[in-house]
Amino acid sequence: MQIAVAKVNKYAVSESGDTLEVVERPNGGLSVVLADGQSSGRGAKAISLMVVRKVIGLLAEGVRDGAAARAASDALFTDKQGKVISTLNIASVDLRSGTLVLTRNNPAPMFICRGEQIDILKEESIPLGTSRNIRPLITEVAIEPGLIIVMYTDGLVHAGKRRGMPMDVGAMLRSVLEDQDPTPQELADTLLAQAVSLDDNRPADDISVLVLKVTPLSGDNVRRMAVRLPLDGVARLS
Amino acid sequence: MQIAVAKVNKYAVSESGDTLEVVERPNGGLSVVLADGQSSGRGAKAISLMVVRKVIGLLAEGVRDGAAARAASDALFTDKQGKVISTLNIASVDLRSGTLVLTRNNPAPMFICRGEQIDILKEESIPLGTSRNIRPLITEVAIEPGLIIVMYTDGLVHAGKRRGMPMDVGAMLRSVLEDQDPTPQELADTLLAQAVSLDDNRPADDISVLVLKVTPLSGDNVRRMAVRLPLDGVARLS
Repeated sequence: MQIAVAKVNKYAVSESGDTLEVVERPNGGLSVVLADGQSSGRGAKAISLMVVRKVIGLLAEGVRDGAAARAASDALFTDKQGKVISTLNIASVDLRSGTLVLTRNNPAPMFICRGEQIDILKEESIPLGTSRNIRPLITEVAIEPGLIIVMYTDGLVHAGKRRGMPMDVGAMLRSVLEDQDPTPQELADTLLAQAVSLDDNRPADDISVLVLKVTPLSGDNVRRMAVRLPLDGVARLS
Repeated sequence: MQIAVAKVNKYAVSESGDTLEVVERPNGGLSVVLADGQSSGRGAKAISLMVVRKVIGLLAEGVRDGAAARAASDALFTDKQGKVISTLNIASVDLRSGTLVLTRNNPAPMFICRGEQIDILKEESIPLGTSRNIRPLITEVAIEPGLIIVMYTDGLVHAGKRRGMPMDVGAMLRSVLEDQDPTPQELADTLLAQAVSLDDNRPADDISVLVLKVTPLSGDNVRRMAVRLPLDGVARLS
């Protein structure tokens, strides 16, 4: 299993309203949690960080994904009386069941690709914090070689709209997957680059793209993680 | 800034006693938290997961690294009456101060490399949970291009001892850094591969290697993360 993330901030905003974290599950496997807090900058960051921390804390205790999403929504609603909302996506690798569990509280759709077949999950889904008793949409798929999952925050959906050239994520995905056998990082980077380009290289919103891919086990048994963090702020400091 | 991790389990043990997670800091930047619970397998995993979760929860609230380490130690000591211990390393990128903050409660040393100069930090440091009032060793270094930090769990220190050929991490590091300009992932992989080879490809303990490297900003402003998770368990299931 390979997981890749590509993430940019809204143009000229130093803090992303999107938060993404990876947590190990107590029964094996791991979960990737992605939240997008309302608006952008510092306030949005605080919201998405709160949502992600809440969800991760519960997952680490063995709480199921759907219950963790509901709890985070209730906590946000109680705290902000429905005035502040946040989207949430969780992708969990469950080693016990041999499945990927995908949880969505996000109007932005997600894609499940198997070879030539590209399925879009776009059933209506509302963000956390909008009311009591938010229902997360949960999809469980068997982990099998070739499976690709693509999810993202709404910055990708809105890319290009300012110029009247909205991004067609499905078409983009189809063209990339037809031509090549991209790594998850290549796929995430390509989608993000296209969105940034449609926004004239000045993203109108924070954008995060998350790709999971199951490939046949090749090479060693080593777990690896690599993070690249551009340090603009520090460069300015020094 | 690039961060890389390479991690293997003890031979024939399905769960690693080492836990590593990355968390965003509320004031910008991020922290990497690595803990190694006593013994191996499921019990060790529960301990290291508890320590990492405790530390991460506090860091997310804006608690300073040293205070978070002390709190995790007190919690572990209270819970286990000093009978179970865990090592802890924290590497934090602090964008406010433009520094890396390195926290260590681990007898295993760590290395700070700047060009040809390789410094080893090996001042005595004891694990969490051993007594009340554990003091973490904290080192703060300016973030500057070329800086490389290497830290690891004791599986790397003990590699090869069974065969009377212990690993000399410093010498290995020097030879790799003299010959090449490795990426952090190459460096972590090389150290891990050497350790596994000294253990006859059957690691006598869980091993985790963490490398941070500051490189001049090249290319785009995209944050990236890639995770590779070998799914042995699932392969057996299906």
